[in-house]
Amino acid sequence: MGDLSGYKGDALRFLKDAGAAIGDVVEVRTSWGVVTGTLVPRYLHGDAAHVVLKLRSGYNVGLDLEGLKGVKVVAKGEKPSFAPPAPPKSTGGLPRVLILGTGGTIASRIDYRTGAVHPAVSSAELHSLVPELSELARLQPEIMFDVFSENISPRHWTKLAQRVAKAVREEFDGVVITHGTDTLGYTAAALSFALAGVPIPVILVGAQRSPDRPSSDAPLNLVAAVTVAGSADLSGVYVAMHLGESDDRVAFHKGTRVRKNHTSRRDAFVSVGVPLAAVWGREGLERTSGDLPPRGGGQFKPRPKFDERVALLKFYPSMTGNAIRAAKRQGIRALVIEGTGLGHVNREVVRELGRFVRAGGLACMTSQCIDGRVDLNVYDTGRDLLQAGVLPLEDMLSETALAKAMWVLGTGAGGSKAKELMSVDLAGETTTRTFPGKPW
Amino acid sequence: MGDLSGYKGDALRFLKDAGAAIGDVVEVRTSWGVVTGTLVPRYLHGDAAHVVLKLRSGYNVGLDLEGLKGVKVVAKGEKPSFAPPAPPKSTGGLPRVLILGTGGTIASRIDYRTGAVHPAVSSAELHSLVPELSELARLQPEIMFDVFSENISPRHWTKLAQRVAKAVREEFDGVVITHGTDTLGYTAAALSFALAGVPIPVILVGAQRSPDRPSSDAPLNLVAAVTVAGSADLSGVYVAMHLGESDDRVAFHKGTRVRKNHTSRRDAFVSVGVPLAAVWGREGLERTSGDLPPRGGGQFKPRPKFDERVALLKFYPSMTGNAIRAAKRQGIRALVIEGTGLGHVNREVVRELGRFVRAGGLACMTSQCIDGRVDLNVYDTGRDLLQAGVLPLEDMLSETALAKAMWVLGTGAGGSKAKELMSVDLAGETTTRTFPGKPW
Repeated sequence: MGDLSGYKGDALRFLKDAGAAIGDVVEVRTSWGVVTGTLVPRYLHGDAAHVVLKLRSGYNVGLDLEGLKGVKVVAKGEKPSFAPPAPPKSTGGLPRVLILGTGGTIASRIDYRTGAVHPAVSSAELHSLVPELSELARLQPEIMFDVFSENISPRHWTKLAQRVAKAVREEFDGVVITHGTDTLGYTAAALSFALAGVPIPVILVGAQRSPDRPSSDAPLNLVAAVTVAGSADLSGVYVAMHLGESDDRVAFHKGTRVRKNHTSRRDAFVSVGVPLAAVWGREGLERTSGDLPPRGGGQFKPRPKFDERVALLKFYPSMTGNAIRAAKRQGIRALVIEGTGLGHVNREVVRELGRFVRAGGLACMTSQCIDGRVDLNVYDTGRDLLQAGVLPLEDMLSETALAKAMWVLGTGAGGSKAKELMSVDLAGETTTRTFPGKPW
Repeated sequence: MGDLSGYKGDALRFLKDAGAAIGDVVEVRTSWGVVTGTLVPRYLHGDAAHVVLKLRSGYNVGLDLEGLKGVKVVAKGEKPSFAPPAPPKSTGGLPRVLILGTGGTIASRIDYRTGAVHPAVSSAELHSLVPELSELARLQPEIMFDVFSENISPRHWTKLAQRVAKAVREEFDGVVITHGTDTLGYTAAALSFALAGVPIPVILVGAQRSPDRPSSDAPLNLVAAVTVAGSADLSGVYVAMHLGESDDRVAFHKGTRVRKNHTSRRDAFVSVGVPLAAVWGREGLERTSGDLPPRGGGQFKPRPKFDERVALLKFYPSMTGNAIRAAKRQGIRALVIEGTGLGHVNREVVRELGRFVRAGGLACMTSQCIDGRVDLNVYDTGRDLLQAGVLPLEDMLSETALAKAMWVLGTGAGGSKAKELMSVDLAGETTTRTFPGKPW
């Protein structure tokens, strides 16, 4: 009898009766048709009423036991072998690149046999996933965490920043961080502040399709990230993700300017308000932004602390002051408000923000439009917000603003110093504003 | 001595001494240079420390008295004349279009003399702003409200829906609603549900640049909206806004699919997840979507009620369950959670959403990616959310989801009925999902 991990109750009996095991390709008859796929293990808190198959498309489907008419094993799965892959050949003379694993789709190769997409693979196996990596650099892979990126928190940011700072002392040529795509932009922004002035490339990289799918973007993204981290003459924090629909180019985005704008496309990531930093292809790296700092640079003093007492609130019609009062009660010290248009909220929220600021809080305004620039000087509402002490964050992304506010408070700054730090450009998060004309 | 409305204290004295009045073109010397612009009246709660000028660019600038070195009147403003414009000539045989004014930039013509952008003009004056309107339709303009759209609430949606329903009974050929752009998308979605099946075109229209600026999009947008409302053979709720950078085409977006994606560009509005409904140019209306209902149609029963006890929460790293608990305490009945990626949140928020649902609340998931589709079947986090009773809203926009949830509760539906209504397509807010393959 094969492995049926995670299945219990009726589902377990049902599968046992059919002689099925995890990893088998099974044909399931349901009330609405026949579904063929690989039997996948259930997650920790799975119920007893579903059988989960991984379809050939790479997606999973949960089938309700009630609608199931029968199960037939079509092909037995190979017995999973968990022997670690052979280490790469030693390759002297190549640049040294530290690969930090945090989890996410890009690190899900081990699920190839079982079908489930959950963070599992060690970064150590990446070189066996993409053999050419070991010809590009001497890799030192380390697993930092193994979580879906929606569970990444400022505490993880701190650990990553500290490890990168150590890598600089260890004279690595570059660092690659594999990360789930969901909060990749938030982490990239956070590290951009914590590691401002870092003298080597720090490349965050993810994948929208798991490596067991033919259309996976993992190998290409990894090759580009490792190449640039090891060899490109630039420094700073970047995100490397698939460019367009082509299969041979990878976009490099500035860490404070990148956003996941599509749930599933491989080219979901875009640079907002600025050009791409660079584009990598098989023929090399093309700089598409004129202000990329070279390697080395000035002094580097990491500031890896973050204060989590920051909340992001998106404004919506009929929003009341309740959310702001609740945040204040819960000890929130700074708010990032995602207003409408140029940075507006309704009268009640203006008043409540005024109270929040008078009580010592820091209130910042971004726009839910995503593109463009907050301007509180155009309309009465904006001027009321300025008078209430709300700080307009120009063309800063909300997600970047959240990470920056956590970082600013983490430096120990408060009051007017915190406000000043929020309003000046520290890591490319805002473009200089021309006064009194407008760039648009 | 001219009018200096709103100025007080030092600012008032400063301007009086210079012999300046509102509407005058003045040259102000500051510590950093000379600014020339039209003196603008202060808003109600303005402080005494600023002088506000409208620049030639159309934007206002607030100048701190402390930095001011002197004021010189360059040209006296014309004395404002508040005589209403002459009514349009009677034009029998033309379609009858009701124009409902709600405020916003599009309705700011009267500020031409004074410079301030605040909602002021009556819709009745639109025909003098764009004389050709009266050749396109017999217009009946009515002022419903006069507010910036960030102050539009579900109560306003109800009044608008009721007035449109009455317009149908009055046999108007179409309705145009002028509206601030900030929450235009929210209102369009709300009316799409409240007026589902409406037999005439209901066109919401705004402007990104006030009509007193040479680059204003107000006249073109209005001409397109009135033409389509009066004469096009379609029905339903649409948003009409500038298309691209050209000056002769207007995009028509489906009311449930439109989003303001740029703070200031005239072509800020985009259709998300679906093609544009139609494109209007001087040569006529081109349908760019195959499913636009013609005029007339089946029975029409407006459902204009909304329940405001719905909150929109955008997830972010380190978000706690506090915001959800606070919402529950405040009597919120439904939550729209803007998750990351395919619709994910961290473990604590998953748990808290489960509690919210078990206590009878309705929790729905959208994605902060904006583009793409929520899918809770791919990753463990998603399956945990499904098990917690969270409803994935497919490719529905967060803003539309908020309006829909308020409308669903407003119909009196609760529990499983509310959940069912949220999960089926009622007004084009989601596209049908192909099972088990994926459209992307």
